[in-house]
Amino acid sequence: MKVFPYTDVEPQDANSGAERVQVRWLITKEMGAPNFAMRLFEVGRGGRSPFHDHAWEHEVFVLEGEGSIMTKEGSRKFRQGDVVFVLPNEKHQFRNEGKGVLRFLCLVPIEKKTK
Amino acid sequence: MKVFPYTDVEPQDANSGAERVQVRWLITKEMGAPNFAMRLFEVGRGGRSPFHDHAWEHEVFVLEGEGSIMTKEGSRKFRQGDVVFVLPNEKHQFRNEGKGVLRFLCLVPIEKKTK
Repeated sequence: MKVFPYTDVEPQDANSGAERVQVRWLITKEMGAPNFAMRLFEVGRGGRSPFHDHAWEHEVFVLEGEGSIMTKEGSRKFRQGDVVFVLPNEKHQFRNEGKGVLRFLCLVPIEKKTK
Repeated sequence: MKVFPYTDVEPQDANSGAERVQVRWLITKEMGAPNFAMRLFEVGRGGRSPFHDHAWEHEVFVLEGEGSIMTKEGSRKFRQGDVVFVLPNEKHQFRNEGKGVLRFLCLVPIEKKTK
């Protein structure tokens, strides 16, 4: 069993193509997680992830702030307390559209996506 | 892509042995999640899960309130913003030790645990 504040994990710059996005890898394969990883993303004002796709899903919970997710279906707004589910191979982009930081959890399977 | 407030999912009473615990199944196999499920637990004042174990891990993020987790190693306090990771087969109990509701996300793998 492990218990720690999320701020114990240092943020890293997210992948290239993202603007003002940092990620903290909270629960990882290296920690002993057998199936999926928990990450916390922080998106600065005006920041966004690239419009991209991949073979794995995203399970997202919005902790703070507001923004939108764009897919080929269009754009949907979200805010604190919202759940966002992105299917495998669904092209998507997260955007911070609020006045402050956008903070959300985003979990991914380990076998298909670690680093 | 799906976006919805967590309150759109009705809470259900948790398994027998739990006291004042309700669960909302936010992202499920039925929704198309291939690997893991997202649940949100709400534990009323003085409530607790049973002291139990199972073959799957828990990946937990504390959204609100404060409590403790008991394992055979002892008890650890947690509060809003904390991450809790419980290994497969690790016996554990969650307890609300705050004055209000304890609210946390708890994700589990789908193949080992759905319903």
